[in-house]
Amino acid sequence: MNGADASELARQIADTRTALNLMWISLCAFLVMFMQAGFALVETGMTRAKNAAHTMGMNLLVYSIGILGYWSVGFALQMGGVGALSTLGGDTHLSSEFVVELAGQKWGLFGTSGFFLTPRVLTPAVAGLFLFHMMFMDTAATIPTGALAERWKFSSFMLFSVVVSTLIYPVYANWVWGGGWLSALGKNLGLGHGHVDFAGSSAVHMTGGVAALVGAKLLGPRVGKFSRDGTANAIPGHSIPLVVTGTFILAFGWFGFNAGSTLAGTDARIAVVATNTMLASAAGALAACLYVWNRFGKPDVTMMCNGMLAGMVAVTAPCAFVSAPSAVLIGAVAGVLVVLAMVFVETRLRIDDPVGAVAVHGANGLWGVLAVGLFADGSYGADINGVPGTVRGALYGDSGQLAAQLVGAASNVVYVGALSALTFLGLRVLVGNRVALEDELSGLDIPEMGLEGYSTDHDATALSGSVGPDGRTTPRVITAVP
Amino acid sequence: MNGADASELARQIADTRTALNLMWISLCAFLVMFMQAGFALVETGMTRAKNAAHTMGMNLLVYSIGILGYWSVGFALQMGGVGALSTLGGDTHLSSEFVVELAGQKWGLFGTSGFFLTPRVLTPAVAGLFLFHMMFMDTAATIPTGALAERWKFSSFMLFSVVVSTLIYPVYANWVWGGGWLSALGKNLGLGHGHVDFAGSSAVHMTGGVAALVGAKLLGPRVGKFSRDGTANAIPGHSIPLVVTGTFILAFGWFGFNAGSTLAGTDARIAVVATNTMLASAAGALAACLYVWNRFGKPDVTMMCNGMLAGMVAVTAPCAFVSAPSAVLIGAVAGVLVVLAMVFVETRLRIDDPVGAVAVHGANGLWGVLAVGLFADGSYGADINGVPGTVRGALYGDSGQLAAQLVGAASNVVYVGALSALTFLGLRVLVGNRVALEDELSGLDIPEMGLEGYSTDHDATALSGSVGPDGRTTPRVITAVP
Amino acid sequence: MNGADASELARQIADTRTALNLMWISLCAFLVMFMQAGFALVETGMTRAKNAAHTMGMNLLVYSIGILGYWSVGFALQMGGVGALSTLGGDTHLSSEFVVELAGQKWGLFGTSGFFLTPRVLTPAVAGLFLFHMMFMDTAATIPTGALAERWKFSSFMLFSVVVSTLIYPVYANWVWGGGWLSALGKNLGLGHGHVDFAGSSAVHMTGGVAALVGAKLLGPRVGKFSRDGTANAIPGHSIPLVVTGTFILAFGWFGFNAGSTLAGTDARIAVVATNTMLASAAGALAACLYVWNRFGKPDVTMMCNGMLAGMVAVTAPCAFVSAPSAVLIGAVAGVLVVLAMVFVETRLRIDDPVGAVAVHGANGLWGVLAVGLFADGSYGADINGVPGTVRGALYGDSGQLAAQLVGAASNVVYVGALSALTFLGLRVLVGNRVALEDELSGLDIPEMGLEGYSTDHDATALSGSVGPDGRTTPRVITAVP
Repeated sequence: MNGADASELARQIADTRTALNLMWISLCAFLVMFMQAGFALVETGMTRAKNAAHTMGMNLLVYSIGILGYWSVGFALQMGGVGALSTLGGDTHLSSEFVVELAGQKWGLFGTSGFFLTPRVLTPAVAGLFLFHMMFMDTAATIPTGALAERWKFSSFMLFSVVVSTLIYPVYANWVWGGGWLSALGKNLGLGHGHVDFAGSSAVHMTGGVAALVGAKLLGPRVGKFSRDGTANAIPGHSIPLVVTGTFILAFGWFGFNAGSTLAGTDARIAVVATNTMLASAAGALAACLYVWNRFGKPDVTMMCNGMLAGMVAVTAPCAFVSAPSAVLIGAVAGVLVVLAMVFVETRLRIDDPVGAVAVHGANGLWGVLAVGLFADGSYGADINGVPGTVRGALYGDSGQLAAQLVGAASNVVYVGALSALTFLGLRVLVGNRVALEDELSGLDIPEMGLEGYSTDHDATALSGSVGPDGRTTPRVITAVP
Repeated sequence: MNGADASELARQIADTRTALNLMWISLCAFLVMFMQAGFALVETGMTRAKNAAHTMGMNLLVYSIGILGYWSVGFALQMGGVGALSTLGGDTHLSSEFVVELAGQKWGLFGTSGFFLTPRVLTPAVAGLFLFHMMFMDTAATIPTGALAERWKFSSFMLFSVVVSTLIYPVYANWVWGGGWLSALGKNLGLGHGHVDFAGSSAVHMTGGVAALVGAKLLGPRVGKFSRDGTANAIPGHSIPLVVTGTFILAFGWFGFNAGSTLAGTDARIAVVATNTMLASAAGALAACLYVWNRFGKPDVTMMCNGMLAGMVAVTAPCAFVSAPSAVLIGAVAGVLVVLAMVFVETRLRIDDPVGAVAVHGANGLWGVLAVGLFADGSYGADINGVPGTVRGALYGDSGQLAAQLVGAASNVVYVGALSALTFLGLRVLVGNRVALEDELSGLDIPEMGLEGYSTDHDATALSGSVGPDGRTTPRVITAVP
Repeated sequence: MNGADASELARQIADTRTALNLMWISLCAFLVMFMQAGFALVETGMTRAKNAAHTMGMNLLVYSIGILGYWSVGFALQMGGVGALSTLGGDTHLSSEFVVELAGQKWGLFGTSGFFLTPRVLTPAVAGLFLFHMMFMDTAATIPTGALAERWKFSSFMLFSVVVSTLIYPVYANWVWGGGWLSALGKNLGLGHGHVDFAGSSAVHMTGGVAALVGAKLLGPRVGKFSRDGTANAIPGHSIPLVVTGTFILAFGWFGFNAGSTLAGTDARIAVVATNTMLASAAGALAACLYVWNRFGKPDVTMMCNGMLAGMVAVTAPCAFVSAPSAVLIGAVAGVLVVLAMVFVETRLRIDDPVGAVAVHGANGLWGVLAVGLFADGSYGADINGVPGTVRGALYGDSGQLAAQLVGAASNVVYVGALSALTFLGLRVLVGNRVALEDELSGLDIPEMGLEGYSTDHDATALSGSVGPDGRTTPRVITAVP
C-alpha cells in the first residue's frame, strides 16, 4: 500500500460522509414537509366545520405556491451567496450576494444566484440545501393561514403566499442563514457570534407570527368574535381529534426541523438537539396545562397543544446550544407565555387569531431567540458566523450575544411587519382581502371553494337513485359537466 | 501499514456504504408503506360516510393480503432473476428467470426463485429489496379500491387483491425492473435503454390505473351516478379534511417512493430526485387549481389534491433523469391532464370512478413514462439496462427511448387490462363482484363489515345504562358474544 | 502512507459508523414517537364522540408527562448501569447499578446514574439512547389510557403516568435491557441467553397490558357495558376512519420500534427485522379477519386492526431471531389469540376494556416473549447478555431459553401488576380514580377538559353575530376572559 491507496481510501470515506449528510438532510426535509399536514389539521380543527374546505385548501395550496415561488426566486435571494457547503459536498455554484459597505464593513442584503434551479446550479449539494430550506420557508408561509382563517379571501391568500415565498421570507432568512448582515454582527461589530438562530425561532416562526399579526389586524375579527361591549367571545373549533393529531404530526416533523438543522448527519449533536426539542415540548404542554387549569379551572386540550407547540418554537433557536435542564426551563416558560400572549392579543390588542398563531409562533419565536442569548452554555458551535469559539449567552458570560439576538428580533419585527403590511394593503386594492359578509356567515366552503368540507348529501344521493338539479346537490364543479 | 491493512480498511468502507444503502432503502420503504394511510384517507374522504368502514376496511386489508401474496409468490415472479445487488451487498441468492428465445435474443418473462423467503434466500440484501418492492406492489394494489368504492363486494375485493399481488403486478414489474423483456428492448433491439421507469409511473401507477379502469367498467356505476338522460351527477365525498390529510401523507411518502428508487443512499442524485418530485407536485396542484377555477368557476379542493397526486405520478418515471424546469413542466401538464381525463372517463367512457383513480394513476402514469422519452436530458443513468451511456429522450436526441416507453406503456395496457378483465369475470362467477342493491342504498358498512363507520349510538348507550336488543345497537360482532 | 495514516483512516471510518448508528437510532426514535398519534387515533376512534377531547387529551399529555418523568428519574433507574455503548460511541457516563448478591451471583435491580441528564452525562451516545428508550417507555405508558378510557379521572391519569414513567416501567426495563437480573438468567443460571426481548413484547407491551388490566379491573366497567343479567353489551366506537388511520400510523412507527432496536444502522439485520414485522402484521390482520368472519358472521374492521396490532406486538420480541415463515405463523396465531383474549377478558373476567388493550398488548406480549423461546432459530444474536453463541428456542434445541422467557413474563405480571394495583389504590385515596356518574353519562369532555371534542356551536356563533352568555357557548376557557 502506498500514498495513492491511502488518498483513495480517504476520498471514499469523504464521499461516504457526504452521502450520509445528504441522506440526513433529505430525510429531515421530508419530516419537515410533513409538518404541513400538522398545520392543516391544527388550523382546521381549531376553526369551524363550515370553513373546513377553505382552511384545508389554503394549507394545501400554500405548499404548492410556496414551492414554485421559492424555486423561481426565493431560494436565490436567500442562499445565493452561500458558497460551498462542506457537509453536503463542495460542488455548489451559489456564490453571488448583493452587499453594501457601511462603516468600513461589508453587509450582505440578499443573494443573487440560483434562480429557477437551472441544470448548471442544481448540484446534489444545492438540491439538498434547497429541499431543506424550502420546507422551512413553507412552515413560515403556512402560519398566517391560521390567524386569518375563516375570513380570508382565497385569491388574496394566494397572492400573499407568492410574496412571502419570493420576497418576505427569503430576504430575512438571508440575513440570518445566507451570510447576510445579521449573521455578520459578530464578525463586524463584536456582538457574540452575530444573530444565531439554530433552526428558525426568528427566521421561520417570528416571520410567520409577525406576518400573521399584521394580517389579522388588517383583516379584522370574525363576525361574532367581539361583542358590542368589547367582550371577546369563544368561537370553539370543531374537532379536537384533528387538533391533537396535527400537534403530534408537528412534534414528529419538528425532530427533522431542529435536528436536521445541523445540515450534517455526521454531527454527533443531532441526538442532543432532538432530546432538547422533546424536553421543551413536554415542558411547554405540561406548563400550559397546569397554568390554564389553575387560572381558568379546566385543563383545556387546545392549550396543551399550543403549549407543546410553543415549547418547540422556543427551543428551536437554542436547541443545539443549551443543556437539557435549560431546555426544560425554556419550554416551561413558553407554556405559560403562550397563554399570556393569547390573552394579550385577544383582550389588549383586540386581534382575532383563531388558532393562537401570533402567541405560538410570534411571542415564542421571540422568546426562543432571546433564550440563545441567555442560556447558550458554550458547549457547541465552533466558529459560527466566522467568530472563533463556541456560542455563549449572557448567563454564561457573553452579553454581546444577547444584544445580537435582540437586534435580529427587532429587525424581524420591522422588516417582516412593514413588508407584510404593504403587501396586505396592496392586495386590498388589487383583489380585496376579506370575503363578503354573507359568505362568512354561511361558511366559506361553497362560495370560495365550490364544495363543502363535510357533505351531508349522502342519503339524498343514495335514496333518490338519481340526483336532479334540486338544489340539494353540492356543486362539486368537476362532476357537474354534462 | 501494509497492503493487508489497506484492504481491511477498504472492506470496512464498503461495509459502511452497504449499511448506509440498506438503511436508506429501509427508511424509504417505511415512507412508502405510510402511503397506504394516505390512500385510505383520500378514498374514504372522497366517498360517502355510509361506506366509510367498508372503504377503510379495503384499504387496511389490501395491505395485509398484498404482503402475504407478494411474500409467497409475487416477489419470486418479479425479482427471482435479478442476481446480485451491488448497492445492498452482493449476497443474494436470486438468479433464476424464465426466459424465451426469440429472434436470436433472450427475453425474460418472470422470475422463478425466492418463494416464501425461506431462510436460505432471506439475506439482508434480499430483505431490503423485498421490503421496498413489497410497498410498491401494495401501492398498485390499493389503487382499484378507490375506483370501485361504494359498491365492491368485500370477498371479491379480497380475491382480486390476491391475484394482483401474486400475478398481475409482479409479472409486469419483472418486465421493467426484474430483468424482463421490456428492460431488454435497448440491449436487444437498440431502443434507447429499453423501457425506463425510475420509480413506477408504468409499473406501479399505470398497473393500478388500468386495473381500476377495467374493474370500474365491469362493476358499473354507483346508483344515482348517471341520470336516465345520461347526465353525470355529483356524488360529493363526505370529508375534505380526510382528503387533504391523505394527500399530504401521500406527498410525504412519495419522497421515499421516488428518492428511494436509487436503491442507494450513496447515490448523490437522491436530493435532486426529491426536489423534482416536490416541484412536479406543486406544479400539478397549482395547474389543476387554476384550470378548474377558470373552467368551472371555483378552485375545487379535491381537484387541487388530484392535481398534486397527478404531478407526482407523472414525475415518478422521469424524476431522476430530468432538470428542475422540466419537472415543473411535467407537473403542470399533469395538473391539467388529470382534469381532462376525469371529464373524459365520466362523460365519454361513462365510467364511474369516485376518486378519479383512472385519471390520476392511469392517464398520468402514461404521461410519466412518455415524459422520460421526451425530457430525459442525459444527466443521469450510466449503463442502465446494459446499454452504455445516459438516458436521453427524443428532445435530447434519442427517439428510440420514446419508442421503448411507448412499447412499455402499450404492453401494460394490454397485459394488465386483459388479466384484470379475466380476473373480474372469473370472480363474478365465483363470488360475485357487486353488492346487493339494498346494501348499496343503505350503505355497505353494516351489511359488508358488520359495523358503522361512524356510530351515532353514543347517547342511547350512555343514557339507557344498559343497551338491550332494541335494534339501536350497532351489531359490533365481537361484543355481542354472550 | 504509514501506520499513522492508517490509524487516522480507521478512526474516520469508526466515526462515520458511529454517526450512521446515531442517525439510525434518532430516526427510529422519531418513528416510535409518531406512534403516540396512532394510539391517540385508535383509542379515540374506538370510543364515543362525547369523550373525544378527554381521550385525546390523555394521549397528548401522557407523552409530556412521560418525557419529564423519564428524564428526571426513569431513565437513570433503567439505563444507569449500562456502561459504554459501542455502537453509539463509547462516551457514556452511565455505569452505576444497584446490585444484590444472591447464591453467589450478582443480580442488578435498577440503575443509579443519569438523573436529569445533566451536562456531564448527556453525551451524544446517551442522548441517542435516552431518545430511543424514552419513546419506548411512552408506548407502554399510553396503553392504559385506552383500557381505562371514558371513565378515568384526568388527575388520576396524570399521577399514574408519573409513576409509570418514573418507576413501574423503568425498573422492569432495567431487568431486561439495563443489565438487570432477568438479563443475567443465562450467565448466572444457564437459562439460554437470559430473558431475551428484542424490542419489547414484555418490557413495553406486557407492561402496558398488565397495568391496563389492573386499572380496568379496579376502575370497573363503563355504565351500560354489562346488563343486570351479566350480558356484555356493544358500545361501538364513533369513528372507524380514525381507528384505521391510527393503525396505519402504528404500523409505520413500528418499523422504527423493531428495526431500531438493533441500536445500530450498521447491523445488516435491520431489513430482516422490518420484513418479519411486516409479515406478522399482515398475518395477524388476515387471521383476525377470517376468524371473526367465520365465528361471528362479519369481517369486523376494528378486529382487523387489532389483529394487525396483535401480530406486531407478538413479533416484537422475536423479530430479529426468527425466519420469515415463523414470523407469519407468529402473526397468524396472534390474530386469533387477540380475538379469544378479548372475549375472555369481557365475558370471563368481566372487565371492560374499550379498545382491547389487554388482549392486544398483554396477551400478545406474552405470546411474543414465548415465541422467542420457541422459534428463535440460531441465526442471530452473538453473545447476547454475555452468553456465547446465538439465541435458540426450544424448537431449535434450547429449552432453557423458553424457561428464561417464562420467568421474564411471570415477573412482569407480578411486578407490574402489584405496583399498578398499589398505585391505583393509593390514587383512589388521594384524588379518586373515577369520574362522577353524571359526567360519565354526559361525556367527560366538558366536565374534565372544559371543551367539547366536537363542537356543534358553529351556526349559533356565526348567525347571532355576537355570542352572549346564553348557555349555548362551549366554555372554552381561554377565550372567556373579559
